[in-house]
Amino acid sequence: MASLPNGGGAAASGSCGARPVDKEVDFANYFCTYAYLYHQKEMLCDRVRMDAYHSAVFRNAPHFQGKVVLDVGTGSGILAIWSAQAGARKVYAVEATNMAEHARELARANGVTDIVEVIQGTVEDVDLPEKVDVIISEWMGYFLLRESMFDSVICARDRWLKPDGVMYPSHARMWLAPIRTGLGDKKREDFDIAMDDWSLFVQDTQTYYGVNMNALTKAYRAEHEKYYLKSSIWNNLHPNQVIGQPAAIKEIDCLTATVDEIREVRAQVTLPIRMEARLSALAGWFDVHFRGSAQNPGVEEVELTTAPDEHGGTHWGQQENHRLMDMEFTYELHELSGRKHPAVKTKMYLE
Amino acid sequence: MASLPNGGGAAASGSCGARPVDKEVDFANYFCTYAYLYHQKEMLCDRVRMDAYHSAVFRNAPHFQGKVVLDVGTGSGILAIWSAQAGARKVYAVEATNMAEHARELARANGVTDIVEVIQGTVEDVDLPEKVDVIISEWMGYFLLRESMFDSVICARDRWLKPDGVMYPSHARMWLAPIRTGLGDKKREDFDIAMDDWSLFVQDTQTYYGVNMNALTKAYRAEHEKYYLKSSIWNNLHPNQVIGQPAAIKEIDCLTATVDEIREVRAQVTLPIRMEARLSALAGWFDVHFRGSAQNPGVEEVELTTAPDEHGGTHWGQQENHRLMDMEFTYELHELSGRKHPAVKTKMYLE
Repeated sequence: MASLPNGGGAAASGSCGARPVDKEVDFANYFCTYAYLYHQKEMLCDRVRMDAYHSAVFRNAPHFQGKVVLDVGTGSGILAIWSAQAGARKVYAVEATNMAEHARELARANGVTDIVEVIQGTVEDVDLPEKVDVIISEWMGYFLLRESMFDSVICARDRWLKPDGVMYPSHARMWLAPIRTGLGDKKREDFDIAMDDWSLFVQDTQTYYGVNMNALTKAYRAEHEKYYLKSSIWNNLHPNQVIGQPAAIKEIDCLTATVDEIREVRAQVTLPIRMEARLSALAGWFDVHFRGSAQNPGVEEVELTTAPDEHGGTHWGQQENHRLMDMEFTYELHELSGRKHPAVKTKMYLE
Repeated sequence: MASLPNGGGAAASGSCGARPVDKEVDFANYFCTYAYLYHQKEMLCDRVRMDAYHSAVFRNAPHFQGKVVLDVGTGSGILAIWSAQAGARKVYAVEATNMAEHARELARANGVTDIVEVIQGTVEDVDLPEKVDVIISEWMGYFLLRESMFDSVICARDRWLKPDGVMYPSHARMWLAPIRTGLGDKKREDFDIAMDDWSLFVQDTQTYYGVNMNALTKAYRAEHEKYYLKSSIWNNLHPNQVIGQPAAIKEIDCLTATVDEIREVRAQVTLPIRMEARLSALAGWFDVHFRGSAQNPGVEEVELTTAPDEHGGTHWGQQENHRLMDMEFTYELHELSGRKHPAVKTKMYLE
């Protein structure tokens, strides 16, 4: 009775459905990956991400010069080091995992050890000797909020940010767009194959081992539906897969956002779709902006977007969702002659 | 900052090296997989495993007829159902995960619900109303003891087995053999590629982002050495890869084994190797036997072996280890003429 590691077939993905995941377990699972240099490197190699944060800091150096900075979840320490290089007087770089030790080594090797103080712990628990002018953090998860660190950033802000302080990034948006994609069909195919395979298994187990497994078919189907069909799929989309107008479904001001605001995302959207295209899924992504605050604006606004990009995008990709939920369609047919048909409203539940 | 899920490149494998894994986390990680029907099915589709246990039970029916059985870690409940079908009076099927509910459904659907009582919990914690005649369990992990359940089986035995009771399986052995394999070279190649890639990354990060990452090279190398070179590799070997005589390095009597005995495996082995072959690694596997006890023997001895097999073997595969540790070689050259050279002893530390 052994679970299949490297090389031995596909393992069921993601989270454990068997027991409620408690805080300790969740911590281990979440932080576990970030303790690996391999993973830090993956993020450091994301040029779009790196360029955006680098520009955000150095093109807005006045926000940093002679100031006190807090880097939430410093990881390798890169943002803290840049903050110091941009002229910060002091940088508190907080990191929960043992990656903190590496951040210290890097600060030392890059000659900013007198400015950058790495503190191992969570921002919820650590104590800083002073309030800060800037909170910088790379906290965004898939589709912005999935497995994100934003609630920790909010906590840090409420604890440590001076009244005229600024957030880096200052704003974030979630986007939704209709897309065409082959992935949904592929997943449906994989699901059908898995269920055919199950049927053969049920037959064989009865034939060779005298045990009827059919009582488990319903649960097996549900498990695989969830895995294949009801989970968002990570993908790197090409812009030409977007078949209509993206819509912003959430806008966040990082200076004022509350934990309640980000707990749930509900939106009513209008997504004009080109009629010759076949709607197969919705895709989600996000962007963030570095603007400073209304009270304390930056010199130059910088954008980091994870929208579909012909050059390959970022490590965040986009999220495809083939379970389109309750959708109400209102469509108008426009003929080439210019004649418009009356608007038609229809409700669909797409799986 | 997001970890890569399905489809997004390779993730660092296995256990979290960053913090000591405590019991709760370990429980979650371990049992998590076994709560999935997908995983249960994988094991139920292992014909070698299924055939062995099926034969072990039905060819030794006298051990089960009218008797009380405990199935440790029942999973889907297959062993419990077979025990009932072989004539058991009562079967306690203990399962820690929510898989227990499925085991109950299966017992019901196969008409043995009056005999098989599924109890959700761990054998360390549950209470049974009586002692048992047979403890049956499929507890073996990779190379027998890796991620195995055997300490739970020992606990169950010490708590519940009658003095003349029997263990199914009754005996277990761990084997080591010299093998030839291309996998080690492949892993070495992958490692070299990863380090080349790292060098480029260090250059680029200095060039484009003004930060020197070289302070992390040593730690990055160590992390990847561990991942590529110092971990056992799961593989399904062909018998012709075995280039010498396998040796049993551990023999366990399941009736008397203690937790201390299985905590560590130390062995001094003699592995005759065919001189024309190139020793590239050692491979480990195990077998178990169903013999009953000396006091209470079975009718027919059954073997379940995970040795390299030309028909594909089991889901356990074998474990290749390329870090051959301290090895002392004594070799004798035998010429075709019959002349033997004096024995030569040499010490090697193979990486």
